[in-house]
Amino acid sequence: MEHALDFRRATLADLPAIVALLADDPLGARREKFSDPLPPSYSEAFAAIDRDPNNELVVVDTPERRVIGVLQLTFIPSITYQGGWRALVEGVRVAAEFRSGGVGQRMFSWAIQRARERGCHLVQLTSDKTRPDAIRFYESLGFVASHEGLKLHLGGPGRA
Amino acid sequence: MEHALDFRRATLADLPAIVALLADDPLGARREKFSDPLPPSYSEAFAAIDRDPNNELVVVDTPERRVIGVLQLTFIPSITYQGGWRALVEGVRVAAEFRSGGVGQRMFSWAIQRARERGCHLVQLTSDKTRPDAIRFYESLGFVASHEGLKLHLGGPGRA
Repeated sequence: MEHALDFRRATLADLPAIVALLADDPLGARREKFSDPLPPSYSEAFAAIDRDPNNELVVVDTPERRVIGVLQLTFIPSITYQGGWRALVEGVRVAAEFRSGGVGQRMFSWAIQRARERGCHLVQLTSDKTRPDAIRFYESLGFVASHEGLKLHLGGPGRA
Repeated sequence: MEHALDFRRATLADLPAIVALLADDPLGARREKFSDPLPPSYSEAFAAIDRDPNNELVVVDTPERRVIGVLQLTFIPSITYQGGWRALVEGVRVAAEFRSGGVGQRMFSWAIQRARERGCHLVQLTSDKTRPDAIRFYESLGFVASHEGLKLHLGGPGRA
């Protein structure tokens, strides 16, 4: 049976639950700082996302209002593809005990539908090559690993 | 000797030159429509970029005011990395006769500096795996191909 899940825009009250999800991951544990209170950089970032009409932070709730999934959508106007909009997906996490239960698939169905509503011709994301299960998951959704995802770190959290 | 180049935000008057650059490329030729007048979708996209404080379309001019390079920067607020901003680079093109002359390197020095000014901890891009020279170029700048770049096309120009 499928879980009854609710997809909605995140609010500031969700922020501790979101950071907890992001930190509960081998890569995220090195990057995040889940303390009480949270470092103010998190709420500043939340405010920047929340006021930007081209960014949407989406959470997934159980009926008990527990946040078990998060992702961020960025809608990007581009000159390429005859002036086409694209949607970038970042910061995807599902709570450990809900993985392999179809939650991720439903989150992406939701995100792809949202990208269509926003007139995007393309949904794109990058996935760390040390996460082969994630890459297989995205390929199962129809994503094609046609590109190299290149990163240049300029310093900051998690990079000594 | 280095070319004397000017880096600046694109204006609407640059749009035909930008589309000509994008179309003059094996992949771009299939995606773009360089006609006179241009399809209105290009100027609509330009307007969307121009009014968005988190998107910057940058062109490179010769002293004769010929546009020989273009790239787009998108500044993205994120919850990940303790609420860190990242810069996404898209739509990079250098005019054929100016390639291998250090123009691309100077465009990226400029873009990376701009990302630092905007407080980004990370610059990211994806590069088509059928462009090995481009990937080597990015690696020479310090980018690491740590991620797969996955794309899901939803239909539109260049995808019949």
